[in-house]
Amino acid sequence: MQMTDKFASLATDNAPGQELRQAAGNIGDLICGESIAGRLVDFSHGDIDAFLPTPGAFDRFFEAIAAGGRQAYTEYRGSADIRAELAEKLATFTGAPISVERGTIITPGTQGALFLAVASLVNQNDKVAIVQPDYFANRKLVQFFGGQVLPVTMTYMGGGSEAGLDLSQLRAAFDVGAKVFLFSNPNNPTGAVYSEREVVEIAKLVEAYGVTVIADQLYSRLLYEGETYTHIRACGVPEDRIITIMGPSKTESLSGYRLGIAFGSPSIIENMEKLQSIVSLRAAGYNQAVLHTWFSEPVGWLDERIRQHQAIRDDLLSLFREGGIASRTPQAGSYLFPTLPPLAVSQHDFVRLLRHQANVIVTPGNEFGPHHDSVRLNCSQDQDAAIAAAHRIVTIVHRYLD
Amino acid sequence: MQMTDKFASLATDNAPGQELRQAAGNIGDLICGESIAGRLVDFSHGDIDAFLPTPGAFDRFFEAIAAGGRQAYTEYRGSADIRAELAEKLATFTGAPISVERGTIITPGTQGALFLAVASLVNQNDKVAIVQPDYFANRKLVQFFGGQVLPVTMTYMGGGSEAGLDLSQLRAAFDVGAKVFLFSNPNNPTGAVYSEREVVEIAKLVEAYGVTVIADQLYSRLLYEGETYTHIRACGVPEDRIITIMGPSKTESLSGYRLGIAFGSPSIIENMEKLQSIVSLRAAGYNQAVLHTWFSEPVGWLDERIRQHQAIRDDLLSLFREGGIASRTPQAGSYLFPTLPPLAVSQHDFVRLLRHQANVIVTPGNEFGPHHDSVRLNCSQDQDAAIAAAHRIVTIVHRYLD
Repeated sequence: MQMTDKFASLATDNAPGQELRQAAGNIGDLICGESIAGRLVDFSHGDIDAFLPTPGAFDRFFEAIAAGGRQAYTEYRGSADIRAELAEKLATFTGAPISVERGTIITPGTQGALFLAVASLVNQNDKVAIVQPDYFANRKLVQFFGGQVLPVTMTYMGGGSEAGLDLSQLRAAFDVGAKVFLFSNPNNPTGAVYSEREVVEIAKLVEAYGVTVIADQLYSRLLYEGETYTHIRACGVPEDRIITIMGPSKTESLSGYRLGIAFGSPSIIENMEKLQSIVSLRAAGYNQAVLHTWFSEPVGWLDERIRQHQAIRDDLLSLFREGGIASRTPQAGSYLFPTLPPLAVSQHDFVRLLRHQANVIVTPGNEFGPHHDSVRLNCSQDQDAAIAAAHRIVTIVHRYLD
Repeated sequence: MQMTDKFASLATDNAPGQELRQAAGNIGDLICGESIAGRLVDFSHGDIDAFLPTPGAFDRFFEAIAAGGRQAYTEYRGSADIRAELAEKLATFTGAPISVERGTIITPGTQGALFLAVASLVNQNDKVAIVQPDYFANRKLVQFFGGQVLPVTMTYMGGGSEAGLDLSQLRAAFDVGAKVFLFSNPNNPTGAVYSEREVVEIAKLVEAYGVTVIADQLYSRLLYEGETYTHIRACGVPEDRIITIMGPSKTESLSGYRLGIAFGSPSIIENMEKLQSIVSLRAAGYNQAVLHTWFSEPVGWLDERIRQHQAIRDDLLSLFREGGIASRTPQAGSYLFPTLPPLAVSQHDFVRLLRHQANVIVTPGNEFGPHHDSVRLNCSQDQDAAIAAAHRIVTIVHRYLD
């Protein structure tokens, strides 16, 4: 693969958070009507000024500074004490044991964990099954290492109690030699949670074909009322063939500390640590201490956070549906992935117009696969601001209907 | 390249800081004499409890937490405000202009910058000229991306005012097609600083052959009395073909924050940012604010730090030389790379014996190239503890003489 090809697939211009670097360009010819005033809402990521970082996070950081060198220079895979604590908590949360000494690695964000896991498993020409839609970096990571993406459709708008993964397509991908299956659950961007039946079927297929699984469960704690979650690592996949990835950047609003964790297969984690030694050495030493707060939040804190997000989710869904914009009801996480009605402008231009005329930032759906009629919103925002912005989205959509 | 080969070259067992993970193994058969009591000194990295982080660093972190989302979610290449400030300071320091908007990227440590730079420039089968000895990750990085290392000898024990780089070997590497030259200045592990003549000759060769340079200048601020430093980026290398890497982890003891910066070629930095978006997203947002302190330390702070390190350097050099252990006098940085006399045990076993019998950790020389008779010491330690440990090193060396 040529260097230019390698980096062409990494286009970041429309990636969440990169809007600052977008040239304004000429959208003058496209503009209809006046701008709609309103406070900027950046739905590309959560607003941690609206949903504050976990109580006590900063205190643990402060203690780490006081601890000095011991905390600044941890093993590359992260502080042994903190990993031991996390192994216990995450084994309880996911319902399957974790090797304390060999089964965990702390990384700079879950992005760091994903990168190391893919790099440790995907080589030139390896086939990797990837869900469509799914987190935009999944495809890019596989392509960067010269792997071949085999897309597997998720019919997330189908309704019902399943995520909608096409299991026959997944089997077909394994039939033609996919060696890795990489997926997020809850799904990013749709908020779909895989049913127990789907997870068990995936686990059976993985087992039968000798495939390795990377399960990105970043949002699995923010589970809405009445929903159930099945951890694939507790469904019989052999320990050495599964890596689960989580982190406190989203639900817990700790993104500014850049912390993630991968757990599971000791042999994969050993390679991930070797690679981390040349990628970034380790997650920032002091920051690691913030993980003490994770899964140890004050009683009721998580329930309240879920309740607040669910309220915003429901408000936005109602507004969109009344405005003729369809959306799956997310079962977990803070993303909405509405389907826009046919517009007279391209998705790319719609996103720019929305920003220019309505002070609202959303992420284009085609960052997540060939989803040219969708946009993603992270609803972890100030509730009033989010509702006002959703009204503006509906207005702008109607203004540019085909 | 097979996956197993790809990771075999990343062995981290003897890497600095990984000693915790080394199995004790059986060294019982090798042991001569009693253990020598003394406080543990870990020369594998600097002791930030002896040399404290820059004054004000934590205050800037605290302000960043208070700033909230704005500081947590920066551009992938880092906060625009902080990069603008750094571009100005680093242009002054290095004597050549830096593009404020397009010429800088903040990374998780200088390791992060090195990884991104090599990944952006080295593809399968590309030839890369690397100095021997030099920082251990350089070789590993090139090999991980399937590149071919062309070693260039530095005769660092030659004395005189030059680092001792074999410029004819460098030219020969360029003659056979090396497209990248990656080197640290001051050299890690020897502390050699390239003379103005050497740097200018490198710059001329690079220009003549169209080679791209990655200059790791991590330690270039800790320059001992009477020494001069020449920045290669100010020596006529075209802007688009040089990346300089620095960071506040060493001289400034800020390693626990994991911060580095790469500056220079806008096109290379654009690719580095694209890659950072899938590797770790960004250097931890709050941590980036600590860079405000860099090159803005209290008056006299750097001079005093240099003076203190020079005193330890001189004490250790005297002790080693009196004990029959030769060493180049480092001109910058805090590393010593003494040559041990012929021993009856292997380098690997000597390092283990030293730890077991004398409570002293050093890094084996063969981490830096084929240097089986050397060890590296980071002298950024408590002065008394370092002197006591150096005495123990001399004793153990004499105990195991061939």
